[in-house]
Amino acid sequence: MPNHIYIATSLDGFIATTDGGIDWLNDIPNPDGSDYGYTNFMQKMDALVMGRKTFQVVLGFGEWPYDKPVFVLSNSLTSIPDNLKDKVKIVSGDLKSVISDLNKQGYQNLYIDGGKVIQSFLCEDLIDEMTITRIPILLGSGIPLFGELKQRLKFTNKNTQAFGNGLVMSSYVRDRG
Amino acid sequence: MPNHIYIATSLDGFIATTDGGIDWLNDIPNPDGSDYGYTNFMQKMDALVMGRKTFQVVLGFGEWPYDKPVFVLSNSLTSIPDNLKDKVKIVSGDLKSVISDLNKQGYQNLYIDGGKVIQSFLCEDLIDEMTITRIPILLGSGIPLFGELKQRLKFTNKNTQAFGNGLVMSSYVRDRG
Repeated sequence: MPNHIYIATSLDGFIATTDGGIDWLNDIPNPDGSDYGYTNFMQKMDALVMGRKTFQVVLGFGEWPYDKPVFVLSNSLTSIPDNLKDKVKIVSGDLKSVISDLNKQGYQNLYIDGGKVIQSFLCEDLIDEMTITRIPILLGSGIPLFGELKQRLKFTNKNTQAFGNGLVMSSYVRDRG
Repeated sequence: MPNHIYIATSLDGFIATTDGGIDWLNDIPNPDGSDYGYTNFMQKMDALVMGRKTFQVVLGFGEWPYDKPVFVLSNSLTSIPDNLKDKVKIVSGDLKSVISDLNKQGYQNLYIDGGKVIQSFLCEDLIDEMTITRIPILLGSGIPLFGELKQRLKFTNKNTQAFGNGLVMSSYVRDRG
């Protein structure tokens, strides 16, 4: 199960408002302090693959949040901030080659993140497992998680967990059978 | 909790393919013969409210499937087939007046069905409870369940059930607090 998605969406399938806002995510009370399986998920990952936009959003957080190596898919990005040069690499080219190269370097379990990158991976049927957490809100508009595909993709529901604050997390494995 | 939605969608939020097809729904094995709580849900409903398109799809089934009265929201429909005249009525006007009239006639729990009608009700914040069943497939395109809203709508997750065949059913109650 090499390529993974782990992401939250509104009930109407948006990962952010149209201007990239995620205030509605932080708006959900979390009295139990749950990390919704994030630490456990990240421990299984060997590296992250994200798009330039997501990278720039993460840079805006100030503190770099990842222990694992990050590969930024970009044709336009030319340099990485000095303090991140040992943690972040720029990669480009077609997705299958990028994945193949990373796999050869020993990075098997990849956390694929960012709206456009996720859509590109799904369009090429390159996602093997997705964990989607539904936030109990309808936004009405925003940046959608899913996009157009070349073909229908079937999945198997591996696990579903409903949290007390209304979040519903489901893990799906791609069913290519 | 007067106005209810009870509907299935793909993981990417479509209730039918672009041409209205629902073959992908029937494609899911159902070895337990579960009705996913439909009988129980319908027993609580006093009547159905649907759009003209959905009505015409249901007419195409041949056998009329509903015990409860059906109200078809339409400005263009002028007549109902003779054999359904005691079961189906045409209603029109603004949604709040339509609901108010039905409530006054004793129809309190309304099952709101059909893509456009559901979107119109949500846009006016007139849905109180939704049961959404996620089918483990990505379609890539189709007729979306949700549409644009005038404002964000928060919900509370009342119940979530994962079925052995991968369907995940969640019931949400509108949180106007």
